[in-house]
Amino acid sequence: MKRQDFDEIAERLRNWGRWGPEDQRGTLNHIGPEALKRAVSTVQSGKLFSLGLKFDKDGPQLGGPGGRFNPMLYALQVGTIINPKHPSARVSDDVIHMPLQCATQWDALGHVHYDGVLYNNCKACDVLSAKGAARLGVENLAMPGIMSRGILLDIARLKKVDALPLDYAISVDDLNAACRAQGVAPRKGDILLVRTGHIRRFTVDKDRVAFNGDQPGLHHACAEWAHEHSLAAMCADNVGVEIVNREFWEAEAPAPLHMLCIRDMGMPLGEMFDLECLAADCADDGRYEFLLSAPPLAVTNGFGSPVNPLVLK
Amino acid sequence: MKRQDFDEIAERLRNWGRWGPEDQRGTLNHIGPEALKRAVSTVQSGKLFSLGLKFDKDGPQLGGPGGRFNPMLYALQVGTIINPKHPSARVSDDVIHMPLQCATQWDALGHVHYDGVLYNNCKACDVLSAKGAARLGVENLAMPGIMSRGILLDIARLKKVDALPLDYAISVDDLNAACRAQGVAPRKGDILLVRTGHIRRFTVDKDRVAFNGDQPGLHHACAEWAHEHSLAAMCADNVGVEIVNREFWEAEAPAPLHMLCIRDMGMPLGEMFDLECLAADCADDGRYEFLLSAPPLAVTNGFGSPVNPLVLK
Amino acid sequence: MKRQDFDEIAERLRNWGRWGPEDQRGTLNHIGPEALKRAVSTVQSGKLFSLGLKFDKDGPQLGGPGGRFNPMLYALQVGTIINPKHPSARVSDDVIHMPLQCATQWDALGHVHYDGVLYNNCKACDVLSAKGAARLGVENLAMPGIMSRGILLDIARLKKVDALPLDYAISVDDLNAACRAQGVAPRKGDILLVRTGHIRRFTVDKDRVAFNGDQPGLHHACAEWAHEHSLAAMCADNVGVEIVNREFWEAEAPAPLHMLCIRDMGMPLGEMFDLECLAADCADDGRYEFLLSAPPLAVTNGFGSPVNPLVLK
Amino acid sequence: MKRQDFDEIAERLRNWGRWGPEDQRGTLNHIGPEALKRAVSTVQSGKLFSLGLKFDKDGPQLGGPGGRFNPMLYALQVGTIINPKHPSARVSDDVIHMPLQCATQWDALGHVHYDGVLYNNCKACDVLSAKGAARLGVENLAMPGIMSRGILLDIARLKKVDALPLDYAISVDDLNAACRAQGVAPRKGDILLVRTGHIRRFTVDKDRVAFNGDQPGLHHACAEWAHEHSLAAMCADNVGVEIVNREFWEAEAPAPLHMLCIRDMGMPLGEMFDLECLAADCADDGRYEFLLSAPPLAVTNGFGSPVNPLVLK
Repeated sequence: MKRQDFDEIAERLRNWGRWGPEDQRGTLNHIGPEALKRAVSTVQSGKLFSLGLKFDKDGPQLGGPGGRFNPMLYALQVGTIINPKHPSARVSDDVIHMPLQCATQWDALGHVHYDGVLYNNCKACDVLSAKGAARLGVENLAMPGIMSRGILLDIARLKKVDALPLDYAISVDDLNAACRAQGVAPRKGDILLVRTGHIRRFTVDKDRVAFNGDQPGLHHACAEWAHEHSLAAMCADNVGVEIVNREFWEAEAPAPLHMLCIRDMGMPLGEMFDLECLAADCADDGRYEFLLSAPPLAVTNGFGSPVNPLVLK
Repeated sequence: MKRQDFDEIAERLRNWGRWGPEDQRGTLNHIGPEALKRAVSTVQSGKLFSLGLKFDKDGPQLGGPGGRFNPMLYALQVGTIINPKHPSARVSDDVIHMPLQCATQWDALGHVHYDGVLYNNCKACDVLSAKGAARLGVENLAMPGIMSRGILLDIARLKKVDALPLDYAISVDDLNAACRAQGVAPRKGDILLVRTGHIRRFTVDKDRVAFNGDQPGLHHACAEWAHEHSLAAMCADNVGVEIVNREFWEAEAPAPLHMLCIRDMGMPLGEMFDLECLAADCADDGRYEFLLSAPPLAVTNGFGSPVNPLVLK
Repeated sequence: MKRQDFDEIAERLRNWGRWGPEDQRGTLNHIGPEALKRAVSTVQSGKLFSLGLKFDKDGPQLGGPGGRFNPMLYALQVGTIINPKHPSARVSDDVIHMPLQCATQWDALGHVHYDGVLYNNCKACDVLSAKGAARLGVENLAMPGIMSRGILLDIARLKKVDALPLDYAISVDDLNAACRAQGVAPRKGDILLVRTGHIRRFTVDKDRVAFNGDQPGLHHACAEWAHEHSLAAMCADNVGVEIVNREFWEAEAPAPLHMLCIRDMGMPLGEMFDLECLAADCADDGRYEFLLSAPPLAVTNGFGSPVNPLVLK
Repeated sequence: MKRQDFDEIAERLRNWGRWGPEDQRGTLNHIGPEALKRAVSTVQSGKLFSLGLKFDKDGPQLGGPGGRFNPMLYALQVGTIINPKHPSARVSDDVIHMPLQCATQWDALGHVHYDGVLYNNCKACDVLSAKGAARLGVENLAMPGIMSRGILLDIARLKKVDALPLDYAISVDDLNAACRAQGVAPRKGDILLVRTGHIRRFTVDKDRVAFNGDQPGLHHACAEWAHEHSLAAMCADNVGVEIVNREFWEAEAPAPLHMLCIRDMGMPLGEMFDLECLAADCADDGRYEFLLSAPPLAVTNGFGSPVNPLVLK
């Protein structure tokens, strides 16, 4: 995309000031008591799903030099005696060393920016440092955390494939077609879950390289769709929510959906959500809406947070 | 407590084998579709609360030699250029180094044991190592994660104090009195939240030493109450759920509630849940039941997990 | 000190360009084959001393929020079987998490700066980032590492105390008096070890708070003395080599010796060198010169390095 | 090798009790004042060499799941203002997270064992835990640190190759031939440096996979040679000092040289020493002896230590 074309879209979608000059929660402001009560009203079967990957050394990261790596777990104590006089009782503790964005996770609003400015007109030079994001850190998305009605648009199923091809850009038409086919309509405050099937390249094929390479995802025009429908957040089962290809990296406006959502709209993106079991159940009962609870940890100044998203149908 | 007295209680409460010889989820098995639908039916106002502390260097840990410490956040990259030809677009990433049990958190079933055996007859020597808990790790509590009806028993309010005295042991009578006063009855699969007010010694008084020292909490007899009512989990706003005093450390059977719940019953304990805002709202509207969603991260082999618990009323 | 007074001294001592515009080793350039052969020629008794503190959780750091902390050692594997068919043979491995400057250590030339410029006219904005010091990192002091003649000036012994008072600033006169009393003369390329006795407040008194507070050390005028004598480096047994007091923190030109040595002269400072055993031996045999070998680790971009300095007499 | 054959050798070489029942320094006891004075007497040219690799994300580790990885450097503070009233003066600090054995390093005597017993009859169950090696930790090799006469046996040069073939086992005959060809004789307390050229596969070819795979090194019979000559330590420019091949991993007695040296003789092994520049200089002047100073850090309970070995010729 040309930078000029990008800028025109960005201007239309920009939510800066919409929720006040100090706002750090962006489109999460779309979620209010009504949205939450509507979310709860979708629950019928009482079935509970976790959409989170495991956090361990066998995670999805390639671990190349200097980049994200898989979690490292260290024991602080293993079977330490509590009372030396009666040594039967023991306690064990541990420590984790991990990138905040190494598996299923939320991007905080401080995660990306362009032109030296972040969401809501925060200057990068004032806000970003080795200590993290002094504003727009993930703690702002955590207090209170993220809960709303979730809707699943299963694009892989719509296209009758296990996983979309690596170069497939999901269009607005695809989203609308999935809404029709799956009988669900987006409403203000909803959280959109998009299934590409791409996560199977990691969870089923065990192919980390493929999982982290070029991949199917949302075309950046979907940011406009999210804006029109006043969505609170968008999540997907790939690494970057949006399509990742040469254009993603090398355009005049790289990572365009990230930039439009996070920096202009103030919309958190949820990545590597494992939607396989949920999607199978939705296909079964034909119901693609549910209660979604996906609270980030309140990591002060964090650029993201690991999460174990729960869905109750 | 004498070890013999402890053993008598432990035998009565022991759930080993109750959910099969391979079970690793313990009393979370009490939560089924009915409990979840009942949980959802409690929602009325659409108000959302986070019960999680912040995860940062100013957290509740004292950080003494060799023990738990507060989270350390490190930047992996700050404003790194995505496409060198068009250097406007930037990305930032970070890494966390933290104990899994340094602030609001769940104890996994592998966290404590006695007599060389963990919940469901797992041998410590087979299961525990520097790599963590090969069985009974917190990932078992995460897939699916923890959601149910929550009930708050506000013992501090019952006793008309901001925080219970440091040496106050909450009795079964206190729990029953709070149920009556607050108009709530425990049911199978519920998660009990107990408010002692002790967390104010950290959040309001900023006194980490007091917060980590002797403290009010549940008398171990409350484990029997939890067992009778088929609770799924118990959480509190202090460090250890149970009362922490000289007896806790130096008895023949130290940390008795931990041992009864985690090791014998297979019941996860939730610690350092910040109940202040929720309790004020419950006092306001007189409703002490709600939907609680508190998903641990699926940290493979972890002895615990940080959590940002959400309550929807 | 007034900034203007500081600037006058700084200008006199500044070595920028002296060893070329690309130099990153500063006064270590004073060490050449002749200095090294002279260093070797001082060896007589064959006695070997280590000047390094232990690196562990009981180290000298206070560990307050956000600052330096003591090393954390984690096992990667403990007694892991090498060949499952013959399980007798085992291997153990570990991981360390530590500030590069938490105990006995070298300050790299990138460690401090003022007016936005580091040693040899490196711009801070070009060189410093969350990835460390892209220039003037400690790897430049490590290849080759630091070896030369060392001379000990035992100021505590000169003043007939175990440790200098907390507010004692060591003057140029003190240095000269110690040279005379101890029969040693500084020469080009020497590494100066200054004994204040302050480390005893940690090693003997076990008082971390006193050790990290106000403390005796070199007056900043000693930088001029080091410059005149073409010393390669200066080390001491306190935390900051120079005197640490209110003036150190609150002057117009704070940490003046650090700034003059590291930023203007390009001289590495060695901190928390434990000189007690060495000093006793020097007092015994009346010989205050020796071979000093104190190689930093080549940590790329590091602001410092832990070190275990060896002295051979 | 058959276990029985191994045991016969091990019994001959075992130094347990030789330096007392509490000894934790093993063959470093061979280094005394005479050896150190002899070491110093070899210095002629005053040329200084560092044998250490850099410690950074581009290091030799492959970083596979659960194993050793390359160092991670994090900034604690970058250009932090010292005195807010005069914000010119700044300080920067960092933290490292690294395995103790990820690049140039010493193996501590606690690193390997067999039959449940470590060097000097220490029981593994008493000594090894998630907290490291309660005895035989690397701090024992650090106080005082390792300095002695070093001798280089350049086997690659002897064989007229840049690097020995991947399956080449260096024999005792090779060591003796190199001694003759290079005009050097091992003496009590010496530290042997063996050049295979293998490190070039990492430093020149940039091939981490080849570097960490099967590789040339010492045949285990060389442990007997080291024992006869009362060497203090052995180091090489490969990963494991000894030959690494299928036999190394899958024999009845795997890693035989490690076991004989570390566990039976109490001899530290130095790994990934970069000998290229030193070897070129030795070939130049025909002198293969020098002063070697390679002090481990005193990491309490550590299974190893990074090191930057210095050679002065």
